[in-house]
Amino acid sequence: MRDAEPVVILGIDPGTAVTGYGVVRKESRGPLSLIECGVIRTKPRDELAQRLAEIHDGVLELIHRHKPTVLAIEDIFYARNVRTTVVLGHARGVILLAGAHSAMEIHEYPPAEIKKAVAGTGAATKIQIQFMVMRLLRLKSAPQPSDAADGVAAALAYALMPNLPRIEEIRYPSSTMTRTPADLKRVER
Amino acid sequence: MRDAEPVVILGIDPGTAVTGYGVVRKESRGPLSLIECGVIRTKPRDELAQRLAEIHDGVLELIHRHKPTVLAIEDIFYARNVRTTVVLGHARGVILLAGAHSAMEIHEYPPAEIKKAVAGTGAATKIQIQFMVMRLLRLKSAPQPSDAADGVAAALAYALMPNLPRIEEIRYPSSTMTRTPADLKRVER
Repeated sequence: MRDAEPVVILGIDPGTAVTGYGVVRKESRGPLSLIECGVIRTKPRDELAQRLAEIHDGVLELIHRHKPTVLAIEDIFYARNVRTTVVLGHARGVILLAGAHSAMEIHEYPPAEIKKAVAGTGAATKIQIQFMVMRLLRLKSAPQPSDAADGVAAALAYALMPNLPRIEEIRYPSSTMTRTPADLKRVER
Repeated sequence: MRDAEPVVILGIDPGTAVTGYGVVRKESRGPLSLIECGVIRTKPRDELAQRLAEIHDGVLELIHRHKPTVLAIEDIFYARNVRTTVVLGHARGVILLAGAHSAMEIHEYPPAEIKKAVAGTGAATKIQIQFMVMRLLRLKSAPQPSDAADGVAAALAYALMPNLPRIEEIRYPSSTMTRTPADLKRVER
């Protein structure tokens, strides 16, 4: 079995006001490395359509710059305020669109699953996530703001999770094999 | 005061499975006319990102074909099922994006406001909307399916509503004037 190619993963924590992102490289044999992280901010006073264009174009710029092949994106967090959740859906829509137009492999993870993959518990605090992101990527300081760390955490969730074959992938064994690197231990979920 | 230019309006009734649309031309003096109407369908079994790309690209194709300057889109209908509403938000997001990227003037209307503008009551049935769309545009038959009629109705809502100056428009009287055609009677809202 040949070594898998290195994979560049774009992790996104979507938000209408602040979208956090992290670009992580995963070598087939070797540590994970952070390429870039940060946030895309939009102005609350701007029209929603304008803000969506800024989020979409910002994500597309990252894709063009780093050529990631995997998009790992946080799934909807159902806020108490339904309106907030629905507006967040608009932002996720334009991010998923950027991924689809770039023919990326897209993985959506519930917030708790990302926290568990990175910090061992679905109830991890923002500080814990920032700390673990710093640890796992051997950074000198934690990514700021926490939204940027959350974006990186989404990318790490993909990188650290055992990529078990999904039902639709059983039909395509070759794609499953490239997604299960032999050098990563299986993490209990 | 010079006659206003004819306006081409793209009306959209967004949906993840079926997005209805109608392209309506409004002459400064003269009747409204239907240029095209129809639906963009996506397959429920496809990935959400793929479906969003089809909706986005379909809307963009309409924009390129007819060069509308106004996008009239139905606002979110808060379904009992929050999940359904949030997924609908994703679809609206990519449609608003297409409008923003095309520098269109965007108007969002709650479903009841569209029904009232077209059929006189916010409680109008789908059949009533289809009938009124047929009447107002002098069509031989009602647009089918009803989603297409709903898309046309969104465009008609913009065309028939008295475009009262909005607060941010008071600063720009010229843009307000082009949006208040003298030949349309003011409709009671």
